[in-house]
Amino acid sequence: MCEATAYLIHDGKEELVLENVDELHTQGDTVTIINLFGDQRILEAQIKMISFVDNRIVLEKGIK
Amino acid sequence: MCEATAYLIHDGKEELVLENVDELHTQGDTVTIINLFGDQRILEAQIKMISFVDNRIVLEKGIK
Repeated sequence: MCEATAYLIHDGKEELVLENVDELHTQGDTVTIINLFGDQRILEAQIKMISFVDNRIVLEKGIK
Repeated sequence: MCEATAYLIHDGKEELVLENVDELHTQGDTVTIINLFGDQRILEAQIKMISFVDNRIVLEKGIK
């Protein structure tokens, strides 16, 4: 399975947001992530990077 | 392996951009995707959705 783990960069450190993420949607400045169990997080953030090899999603508060 | 296929929505249809995508980065309004073979695409677009189950990345031209 290819679920990913989502982290949010806060004060220069990566904080765990949600594990087993199946799906990610963005709308404007909002990122919605949903996991295998239906847990959902909605964040005002942008996607910094995603690694499909390491199954990592790194989010960052909206600095454009 | 969990590589994804990237599509760009153009005229309401999904057009293939790059297969075997390993890594995705965003900076401002630019999305960079890199695949297993080191092929790279840089697009002025935003991420509409990513499915880690279906291994799909759907990009959209910058409508915010």
